[in-house]
Amino acid sequence: VKPYRLYHYWRSSCSWRVRWALEIKKLPVEYVHVNLLDDETDRPEHRARNPMGTLPVLETPWGALLTESLPILEWLEERYPSGVSLLPQNSDDRFHVRRLAELVNSGIQPIQNLTVLDRISFDPQIRKEWSQHFIRQGFVAYESLCASRSGRFSLGETLTLADLFLVPQVYNAIRFELDLSSFPVIERIWKNGLATPECLRAHPDRFAPQG
Amino acid sequence: VKPYRLYHYWRSSCSWRVRWALEIKKLPVEYVHVNLLDDETDRPEHRARNPMGTLPVLETPWGALLTESLPILEWLEERYPSGVSLLPQNSDDRFHVRRLAELVNSGIQPIQNLTVLDRISFDPQIRKEWSQHFIRQGFVAYESLCASRSGRFSLGETLTLADLFLVPQVYNAIRFELDLSSFPVIERIWKNGLATPECLRAHPDRFAPQG
Repeated sequence: VKPYRLYHYWRSSCSWRVRWALEIKKLPVEYVHVNLLDDETDRPEHRARNPMGTLPVLETPWGALLTESLPILEWLEERYPSGVSLLPQNSDDRFHVRRLAELVNSGIQPIQNLTVLDRISFDPQIRKEWSQHFIRQGFVAYESLCASRSGRFSLGETLTLADLFLVPQVYNAIRFELDLSSFPVIERIWKNGLATPECLRAHPDRFAPQG
Repeated sequence: VKPYRLYHYWRSSCSWRVRWALEIKKLPVEYVHVNLLDDETDRPEHRARNPMGTLPVLETPWGALLTESLPILEWLEERYPSGVSLLPQNSDDRFHVRRLAELVNSGIQPIQNLTVLDRISFDPQIRKEWSQHFIRQGFVAYESLCASRSGRFSLGETLTLADLFLVPQVYNAIRFELDLSSFPVIERIWKNGLATPECLRAHPDRFAPQG
């Protein structure tokens, strides 16, 4: 069987979302590391894969190039509905899960990604404060909207799409030294997410460049 | 029949997306204007509706408070599947439409919204250049990924979710004086979108504060 091919960057949270989903769906994947920091995403060969220049890009075994992590996860869910599902059956629950994911997807991640930070400042302190502000603002909303129906994960005891967005964002929050003590629900989900083998197999540490 | 209630701001592109979808689905709506510029979104009564503080918020006839425009549109599509559909039947086409929408949803809008601009600068020229940069970058990708399968709309001759994201973003691009001449496909879709009665009934001009 020809595998999927994922163009990704080890520490990109959007890459982690898709690596995690591919693990959950048990799909064979060949990883191609693209170095965001070396501007490899600006090179013509990457722009040909994705005119937006972002990561990840999922190349299917039949050669289609899929970009944008949320639509990729929705597509994987539709294409591989059996086994572990990333979305609940009930439409109102699906709304709840998608809304939580969206708080990270459009509410946090785009505002603290590398291309935006590079236009703000190259001063690490300013970058940190900017990122902390927007992550905190999103986490306040996530914690509040998630709390009453949360369990081990964002919605009850079953991992969903929302967790695939939250956990990589917490990893970024920790990198930016955000104090998580006012987010006990988020911290619990972070720990429970990291305790799943699929999440660990998709974890940035496993893909960190050597040497 | 008790109507939906939409808390919105006339010129917010995310509000326009949902107004437009409600028109397409022919749902009765009562509009409540919340003034973003007067910081009405920071008041406790709005934070109680939406801890993220953003607009729009859709209150259902049974009192549920729905936030985040993309999940709201997915939910409306699932709840009201008959009549005009915002997503194609085919899973690969749905991916294509969602991916285009996503270029605006997470690729452009969050980076040039009011709360971000207010942290960048209050100098109108700097705000304009910042917004132009990120809208242009997203439009380059949209134009490229959309062109080959576009027709009157982003995917062929039928309006989809992607158009509901693109058209309000073009309205913002024009406000920020972005030169659209290198985006002929986007310009065509913009004009064709504006020629539909549902889009016009949801247009910001109809909701501009008087006086």
